[in-house]
Amino acid sequence: MTDFLARCRAILVDNQLVITDADGMAPYLTDWRGRFTGRARAVLRPGTTEQVARLVRLCAELHVPVVPQGGRTGLVLGSVPDVSGEAVVLSLTRMNRVREVDAANRTITLDAGCILQQVQDAAAAEGCLFPLSLAAEGSCTIGGNLSTNAGGTAVLRYGNTRDLCLGLEVVTAQGEIWSSLRGLRKDNTGYSLRDLFIGAEGTLGVITGAVMKLYPMPRASITALVAVSSPAQALALLTMVQDHCGPALTAFELMSQVCMDLVAKHYPDLPHPFRHRHPQYALLEVASSESEEHAVGLLEGAIGAALEAGIAADAAVASSVAQSRGLWQIREHIPLAQAAAGKNIKHDISLPVSSIPAFLEATDALLLRAFPGCQLVTFGHLGDGNLHYNVAPPDGVAHDDFLGHQDAVNHIVHDSVDRFGGSFSAEHGVGALKRSDMARYKSAVEVRMMQAIKQALDPLGIMNPGKILPPGCVA
Amino acid sequence: MTDFLARCRAILVDNQLVITDADGMAPYLTDWRGRFTGRARAVLRPGTTEQVARLVRLCAELHVPVVPQGGRTGLVLGSVPDVSGEAVVLSLTRMNRVREVDAANRTITLDAGCILQQVQDAAAAEGCLFPLSLAAEGSCTIGGNLSTNAGGTAVLRYGNTRDLCLGLEVVTAQGEIWSSLRGLRKDNTGYSLRDLFIGAEGTLGVITGAVMKLYPMPRASITALVAVSSPAQALALLTMVQDHCGPALTAFELMSQVCMDLVAKHYPDLPHPFRHRHPQYALLEVASSESEEHAVGLLEGAIGAALEAGIAADAAVASSVAQSRGLWQIREHIPLAQAAAGKNIKHDISLPVSSIPAFLEATDALLLRAFPGCQLVTFGHLGDGNLHYNVAPPDGVAHDDFLGHQDAVNHIVHDSVDRFGGSFSAEHGVGALKRSDMARYKSAVEVRMMQAIKQALDPLGIMNPGKILPPGCVA
Repeated sequence: MTDFLARCRAILVDNQLVITDADGMAPYLTDWRGRFTGRARAVLRPGTTEQVARLVRLCAELHVPVVPQGGRTGLVLGSVPDVSGEAVVLSLTRMNRVREVDAANRTITLDAGCILQQVQDAAAAEGCLFPLSLAAEGSCTIGGNLSTNAGGTAVLRYGNTRDLCLGLEVVTAQGEIWSSLRGLRKDNTGYSLRDLFIGAEGTLGVITGAVMKLYPMPRASITALVAVSSPAQALALLTMVQDHCGPALTAFELMSQVCMDLVAKHYPDLPHPFRHRHPQYALLEVASSESEEHAVGLLEGAIGAALEAGIAADAAVASSVAQSRGLWQIREHIPLAQAAAGKNIKHDISLPVSSIPAFLEATDALLLRAFPGCQLVTFGHLGDGNLHYNVAPPDGVAHDDFLGHQDAVNHIVHDSVDRFGGSFSAEHGVGALKRSDMARYKSAVEVRMMQAIKQALDPLGIMNPGKILPPGCVA
Repeated sequence: MTDFLARCRAILVDNQLVITDADGMAPYLTDWRGRFTGRARAVLRPGTTEQVARLVRLCAELHVPVVPQGGRTGLVLGSVPDVSGEAVVLSLTRMNRVREVDAANRTITLDAGCILQQVQDAAAAEGCLFPLSLAAEGSCTIGGNLSTNAGGTAVLRYGNTRDLCLGLEVVTAQGEIWSSLRGLRKDNTGYSLRDLFIGAEGTLGVITGAVMKLYPMPRASITALVAVSSPAQALALLTMVQDHCGPALTAFELMSQVCMDLVAKHYPDLPHPFRHRHPQYALLEVASSESEEHAVGLLEGAIGAALEAGIAADAAVASSVAQSRGLWQIREHIPLAQAAAGKNIKHDISLPVSSIPAFLEATDALLLRAFPGCQLVTFGHLGDGNLHYNVAPPDGVAHDDFLGHQDAVNHIVHDSVDRFGGSFSAEHGVGALKRSDMARYKSAVEVRMMQAIKQALDPLGIMNPGKILPPGCVA
């Protein structure tokens, strides 16, 4: 294996790009939330697709497992190695070049290691919008976004990362380079390999580049916070506003009173638009290609109708883009307020939008029966059917003690999700953390097909082993 | 094999659903454009997913090839059997039940054999839009749309069929039933099998059901016809109108003067909005969730700006939904006028939108040099980079004689498409007709991956053999 490292150094030329000392490797081995630290033979930092291909060919020759890594902001332990110390981490962060912005084609071509924020900025510099937006945008990479099919706050209007991608450059498990970086909006020539690598979490190959869609930049986005009496009323509001605003509705977030209280407690300087407390709140955003006035008028019209119909109980419509930022901050501070309050048990679930009221009623009841007094911190992207359904301990129970119930809580929540036809991972992926959920909730035929695909494209099983496929599946 | 047919009859119960006589089979064996007639052992007409599964298991046991078939409107010989007479045709048209419309989830769940028009109507009955729309909508099935990832006239705003699908029910090549009919907008739990079966043209399994997205029904759609001096000006118009209208722009079609002349000649009763002739015309459609007046105003504003900037030479904006229909009819009658004028050599190609002006200039010149006087009937979905680039004989040359040059013309066009980074099949697929293009234009690594996937999911090679993969590929 000294031979292996010597050959890695020969490929990367600069010895510092093959990191083997403990201190140098440490930042690459621990996950974002600090819950797990793996081990590795080395961290490799290639600068070109050709170098990635040569490194993967070497790893294939010597059967060395490869863990591709972007900004390491994932929440399911998908981009860190296991504790065996067999694998190498392949960090893509040096590959951070915006290759091309083609404003007339509304596309941007990128190295996989570009930071999401950098992509947004490069698009904006050409007068275009790259709509993918999520909390980790200052650190996560587009390659990671693609490998996990990231969601975020603009999915209602623009879709998940998959929907924003027109083509990929991939280094296969054999170390070959495959490119579909053509920027085509239509191309029906065989199986969609692109969609197979998207969301595969690095288990089939290494995404090294991508062509992503750009959109016209809206003139203005205006936000409103609307109080409603229940999740069912929030759903009625969603339907009404979608019918009224069509594609101008770009976000529809749900937050319970518990979330609002948490934010108010930990961030007292943020806006408090309402005098009274309400069971649920919806945060809406409307974008207009015409003007700020048009966006305000459209949103006011929709919410006026909802107030009149008794669907909305109260509402605060921002009168400017600046005021809109303030309302968004309430939503954005929920995870921070949660962290300040102490650890809780998190779930990233999705459901048919129409099932969410019944799901919440049933699942809240199950949890309160099993853990009397537990606190349900429920918020999320209602328009996408995606809830961050988090369970905090009852008053007086220590957060760390409550985490001991994690498996029991997970089973109650995910079993209920399954009964309501939902998914145990909406936008975070599977990684190493949710493999047992794959075994519990996926049908045998689905797992068999996934295993057959893994075996077909990575017969040696070197690409990010121990991720996605349930335990016991041999690649 | 009498045993095989007897077992088919036992599965389908009604003997008339196993068709073996020549007259009864004939309609299922010839392609839409009447260019090819295959042979088959039998045509099977199952009524349920369970029957499909049992038939495929039987075919797998006896190694009988299966050709899944929907409305048989494909243009690349993808849904008819070859001449060996070994295969059975599995017609899905009896499975035509709308299983569920969930207006609050904005989804519709369907049997694969539902006719596209029926799906549009079922959505409209619930006040929703199912946006997929194409010329064959009165006969094609949603299963065929999915298997070929159909495009059509609403792709600019709503995407291809792939983008409209949330989940599938599939009978695998082993005769197992896999379902992801959950209607989820986010679900990151492993490889996207859905996207693998979409566009696979029945070569990996049989799509028997689907959940499709619905959208709010716009209040009004308004159309304009705009004359421009060149494809480059059409592209400048597209960029300008997209910036002005955002997602309200739902279609942007390009037609050359040759197309307009053809339509005027064969359909003199259709509208003639302009006094003068112009090199190119763009047909634009804007939809508004607000009102007819809003749609008209938005479109007039965008086109006024284009006239002022010298991008548009002349324009006719419809003042009502009814007038809009008339303008669309011009576009819709191009293929009919072409057919009336005689056979020509057709190409369904896509390019980066920004490359279309240079592509047309270069390729028109190559063709006119090779076939002096040939007529280029170019129209298509400019907003999607998708051209129907058709070549008709010079005046005085018989259409049938000119068809003898088909291979040479195809090579000139597709080689040029390849140089400009495009695709030889934008929305029609590969089928049996374009397999040699797969060999000519796809990289070896891409073909190897497709072959590996075919082998993994259909190791016996019974699913629609002789389609998609290039000749010489063994499943």
